[in-house]
Amino acid sequence: MALPRKIAIHELGPREGMQIEKNPVSTEDKIRLVDLLSECNFPEIEVTSFVSPKWVPQMADAEQVVAGFTRRPGTRYTAIYLNTQGIARALATGKLDMEGVLSVTASEAFSKKNTNRTIEETFAETEKRIPVLREYGITTDQISVMAAFGCNYQGMVEAEHVVRLVARLMEMAEQHGLPISLIQLADTMGWATPSSIRRLVGMVQDRWPDQVINLHLHDTRGLGIANAYAALEMGVTDFDSAVGGLGGCPYAGFKGAAGNIATEDLVHLCHESGVETGVDLDRLLDVAREAEAIVGHDLPGKVMRGGNLGAYRLQHAA
Amino acid sequence: MALPRKIAIHELGPREGMQIEKNPVSTEDKIRLVDLLSECNFPEIEVTSFVSPKWVPQMADAEQVVAGFTRRPGTRYTAIYLNTQGIARALATGKLDMEGVLSVTASEAFSKKNTNRTIEETFAETEKRIPVLREYGITTDQISVMAAFGCNYQGMVEAEHVVRLVARLMEMAEQHGLPISLIQLADTMGWATPSSIRRLVGMVQDRWPDQVINLHLHDTRGLGIANAYAALEMGVTDFDSAVGGLGGCPYAGFKGAAGNIATEDLVHLCHESGVETGVDLDRLLDVAREAEAIVGHDLPGKVMRGGNLGAYRLQHAA
Repeated sequence: MALPRKIAIHELGPREGMQIEKNPVSTEDKIRLVDLLSECNFPEIEVTSFVSPKWVPQMADAEQVVAGFTRRPGTRYTAIYLNTQGIARALATGKLDMEGVLSVTASEAFSKKNTNRTIEETFAETEKRIPVLREYGITTDQISVMAAFGCNYQGMVEAEHVVRLVARLMEMAEQHGLPISLIQLADTMGWATPSSIRRLVGMVQDRWPDQVINLHLHDTRGLGIANAYAALEMGVTDFDSAVGGLGGCPYAGFKGAAGNIATEDLVHLCHESGVETGVDLDRLLDVAREAEAIVGHDLPGKVMRGGNLGAYRLQHAA
Repeated sequence: MALPRKIAIHELGPREGMQIEKNPVSTEDKIRLVDLLSECNFPEIEVTSFVSPKWVPQMADAEQVVAGFTRRPGTRYTAIYLNTQGIARALATGKLDMEGVLSVTASEAFSKKNTNRTIEETFAETEKRIPVLREYGITTDQISVMAAFGCNYQGMVEAEHVVRLVARLMEMAEQHGLPISLIQLADTMGWATPSSIRRLVGMVQDRWPDQVINLHLHDTRGLGIANAYAALEMGVTDFDSAVGGLGGCPYAGFKGAAGNIATEDLVHLCHESGVETGVDLDRLLDVAREAEAIVGHDLPGKVMRGGNLGAYRLQHAA
């Protein structure tokens, strides 16, 4: 199986990373993390989340973080917003790349726990958001299915069920004339395996061959990088990850919820496998170590301790 | 690619795990770890290492550890010995399954650092050990190549070079009438990738189709489980691993040398992929948590925090 020549990595550390940390992280450190990541040459950095400070107090300084960082050409700076108020707040910064996403959760139980809505209610709510996004001038070009491989509250999630949810979102998008170009499949609670990745990705590719598939993988049970490799072999060219392996969903129902796959480990996998990422791995390893200092504890990323093989090669070629 | 129906896992935690720990681990705790692992139904547990206490003080109590643990039917209990004295000590316990292994390191630089011998000197030394093993009544049926994918002291290791080393060991074994049945390829310093695993394993399988291939993988750069999966896809049925991800080679030339792949994460990968291991994962997760208590720090294994999916399934089926 030929791997893709190049992939795009969406760096989520500043957003997904910060939302689970118990110790408060200063606004200055959050800004610094975004600026350090900007030097690594990511196509996208997710900067923060415009959610209610009542639910996620770690994100209460979202406006200040956005005001503070420095945009670099070539990188898109995005944020999360879950309702009209969040959209308005993000747009008001005047500094973010606004994205419209139609999103549902594949697990009924997790949907209710996480958003207090059933899947059906989420479809209705999502449809209501389409004119709001349009009114704000935001192009909605993505759909996303969370908990697409399994759920700690509900057990296995069948690939056929996920495909039906994708189909409903695609139909909704078509009815509203939305130019969807990306389908995200999120393994929110770390249930995926290389074989379930292949199965679901294959089914989505067969049915929507023109869509870019994005995988959002958590390393909850240690299979994150193996799953990413299985996806590379399927031709997937779009991945989410977080520097150092920051993050984890605070509402995902288990202690020690493991974060996203570590960006630097994904980059290492890609570069050693002949897949370009455009990311400067040496710089990124420095940022991963800095991220550990910022959150005040070890992060699970491996290459920041094991070392970039490129450096060893240069040393021994010299 | 069909995965194997069943694999054999060699649990190395008590040996490879203990040799790198900075804090002293009591003999009682070492014995307890072996006994706890015995309840998980491994085909093999590597109990300890008979090396000079001058070089590895953590292993000075090897005899006491062996005297203390309880053998369980169905598990082989092995140990490491690097010279005649070590063989004699291990044999004198009267309680171990003795194995003869012909071993070289693929990296000249690491060979000298680790054993103060060149590769050529190691071949000569290995050949001298054959009659010693025979004299002690030990069957030599394995060969092993360390640093078979790369080396922090030397850089890349070419697959062709490793195949030549395997061929020389196989010839030596044939000249001495040794019934080799297993070829171990060790990624001692975490240089392997899924593609380099496939390449080297494929070359060894093509040339020696009747040999069992064992992979000894370190998770130094986060690719250990992805590499294991690539090997499963090649039909490899024999793996080393360490509970919790204990271990790491103290002589491998970098700070924070990551240990072996975590046994419970490998077992999780296998069971979720339809590959039997015979190992009781729930019990093993308890042992992994106990191993953390014994060494007094977090271990990198993921499933012990993420949880066994089997338990979630039962819960939601109930």
